[in-house]
Amino acid sequence: MTQNDLQSSETRLERGQRALAAIDGEGGQRVIDALAGIAPDFATYLLEFPFGDIYSRPGLSLRDREIATIAALAAMGTAQPQLKVHIEAGLNVGLSQEEITEILMQMAVYAGFPAALNGLFAAKEVFADSHQSDG
Amino acid sequence: MTQNDLQSSETRLERGQRALAAIDGEGGQRVIDALAGIAPDFATYLLEFPFGDIYSRPGLSLRDREIATIAALAAMGTAQPQLKVHIEAGLNVGLSQEEITEILMQMAVYAGFPAALNGLFAAKEVFADSHQSDG
Amino acid sequence: MTQNDLQSSETRLERGQRALAAIDGEGGQRVIDALAGIAPDFATYLLEFPFGDIYSRPGLSLRDREIATIAALAAMGTAQPQLKVHIEAGLNVGLSQEEITEILMQMAVYAGFPAALNGLFAAKEVFADSHQSDG
Amino acid sequence: MTQNDLQSSETRLERGQRALAAIDGEGGQRVIDALAGIAPDFATYLLEFPFGDIYSRPGLSLRDREIATIAALAAMGTAQPQLKVHIEAGLNVGLSQEEITEILMQMAVYAGFPAALNGLFAAKEVFADSHQSDG
Amino acid sequence: MTQNDLQSSETRLERGQRALAAIDGEGGQRVIDALAGIAPDFATYLLEFPFGDIYSRPGLSLRDREIATIAALAAMGTAQPQLKVHIEAGLNVGLSQEEITEILMQMAVYAGFPAALNGLFAAKEVFADSHQSDG
Amino acid sequence: MTQNDLQSSETRLERGQRALAAIDGEGGQRVIDALAGIAPDFATYLLEFPFGDIYSRPGLSLRDREIATIAALAAMGTAQPQLKVHIEAGLNVGLSQEEITEILMQMAVYAGFPAALNGLFAAKEVFADSHQSDG
Repeated sequence: MTQNDLQSSETRLERGQRALAAIDGEGGQRVIDALAGIAPDFATYLLEFPFGDIYSRPGLSLRDREIATIAALAAMGTAQPQLKVHIEAGLNVGLSQEEITEILMQMAVYAGFPAALNGLFAAKEVFADSHQSDG
Repeated sequence: MTQNDLQSSETRLERGQRALAAIDGEGGQRVIDALAGIAPDFATYLLEFPFGDIYSRPGLSLRDREIATIAALAAMGTAQPQLKVHIEAGLNVGLSQEEITEILMQMAVYAGFPAALNGLFAAKEVFADSHQSDG
Repeated sequence: MTQNDLQSSETRLERGQRALAAIDGEGGQRVIDALAGIAPDFATYLLEFPFGDIYSRPGLSLRDREIATIAALAAMGTAQPQLKVHIEAGLNVGLSQEEITEILMQMAVYAGFPAALNGLFAAKEVFADSHQSDG
Repeated sequence: MTQNDLQSSETRLERGQRALAAIDGEGGQRVIDALAGIAPDFATYLLEFPFGDIYSRPGLSLRDREIATIAALAAMGTAQPQLKVHIEAGLNVGLSQEEITEILMQMAVYAGFPAALNGLFAAKEVFADSHQSDG
Repeated sequence: MTQNDLQSSETRLERGQRALAAIDGEGGQRVIDALAGIAPDFATYLLEFPFGDIYSRPGLSLRDREIATIAALAAMGTAQPQLKVHIEAGLNVGLSQEEITEILMQMAVYAGFPAALNGLFAAKEVFADSHQSDG
Repeated sequence: MTQNDLQSSETRLERGQRALAAIDGEGGQRVIDALAGIAPDFATYLLEFPFGDIYSRPGLSLRDREIATIAALAAMGTAQPQLKVHIEAGLNVGLSQEEITEILMQMAVYAGFPAALNGLFAAKEVFADSHQSDG
């Protein structure tokens, strides 16, 4: 049974759960768990559409997808918790701390210095937590 | 004389002009020209800070920088002319039309379907112009 | 065969197509058609997730859903084409012109007078077109 | 003396105070009180324009107005304290917890999944507080 | 009869009409006229609250108020027609073209280079029109 | 040696450090210090471009520049820490508490009542801290 066969026999939900685990790790699972008490169907949609549909598409690598997501969330400035989850996701899929820092600094050009600063301070927290859990 | 020596003897303005030409091509030069009649100093700042400082940093490739910029501008939804310039810049620095389309589709997840749609329609225009000028 | 049986035997795509036709009418179909030349898969996602999943849920009437959408798009101020489609959709699912005007005026409180003004001028255009096609 | 006579003999401020009490309840009064130490005139404007003028207009029900406000504030993502006040206001004027949850889930389509998630988590807090005060 | 007596005997609407004429001139009146066909009550609110209440307050000069408005509208990036009206209003109440250009350039720091660029190009149009009508 | 000679012999970084100290005081220095552990080059850019280039330009007074910045940050609603730094900066360069309060109230017109409220509550905190440190 090939990888392709495996993918096609999966439901969107199963594919999304696999993608979420690979990308967001614990941070993503905590979001799914937190939804249980308010909107369990929304947890299903979150697994199915962003992760089962979009992140599972072959046309762009997961590393490139996380560059796009980190940039977008930092530029918008309205999604600090999700930005932290995706800075960690970036590390999970192969971005270095230096590369993530470069992406966030670049946002000063497009969304202003406050957006870049708030992104960098979010990264500082995530990197610190990530060092601790390495110990 | 090494590439490094060359870079260090350049002014920020010269380095920015070189980076702008390599990345944004004609689209970028048109912005610089349009500023002449209203704020010529701002054209200098635009060359110096975004292009001379940020895009010239070694820690992230130009291809990765354009993924970040296209994602950010599409997610913000307030910079349609600049989004078009950077979709063209993305093609200039090695992103394929398919990759750019994937980035824009992904923005539906983080900034909503209208942001993705407006980004995709901007790309449709840029790709059409880019085909014509190939002929 | 009951309505419920009909719904459950439909695919998400079919349910989305039925919902889009009922809600957005011609305006929605034009968006789907325009996507064909740039990102046909995104047309599928647009039918499946917003229309097949969200708008097809029983917990909120279509009329109430369009109040929410018109308010959100006017407040965001970055989705003028989609706002027009949904002002027309609002009329299709039972909102009166007066009710839509009240929603848009109310946005002055939450997103400022420019957001309300730009929303009202969008409605003025849609209402004028809708009168013409009645004739 | 009819309800209409009563309304017309009221000042905008009195009408606004009555509307605020009916809609936002304690949450609204806390905002008015907090303004006393920094900008008491702004408390007056807040009562007069949003509540005395807009919410007191007859063309849209209070329930429909709160659908619009909850959707707008969740989509904007920059007004978390006000979103919580209006989720409680929505419950006060007849929206069910299920309907509010549907409105917030729908915002994923127009403003992205982070906007919907942050809205749903705000609702989770308000619903929990509202249960406690029922006990 | 003193200026103060005059002001207090005016209604908010009359005070707003006087303020709008002094500040926005023809550009403001065109907005009021355009509202007639869609939401005439909103024209009244626009005169009463922003102009009759806020701009008529003594604690900040009209020149300073227009600095704030031009900065805010350029930074938001969602209100291009209103930004143009207020660039013209800035000229009406004593800001020089150079000062307006400085305000817009400064927005690059807080809202990004695209916001500054789109603001500067709006100013370029307004300044050109203003020169023509001087001729 | 004239003031002009002094300025021209300074580097952009030195000029920026002098401007930051004069404008933002301790609040600005804390931001620079916090960047040391994540992106020290970004601290340099922050001193050079916003402060060494923009705030050091002669065409607009520091007082007027802070009116613009406070208005922009309050209207955007995504930069609460930076808004507080600049409310303090406004006091440093000659704005009164009353003038700052007027600017923030005015933002209700352009960005909605929540943006104004969140700005006013930020000012309330800064003014309280500033009174304490006067003691």
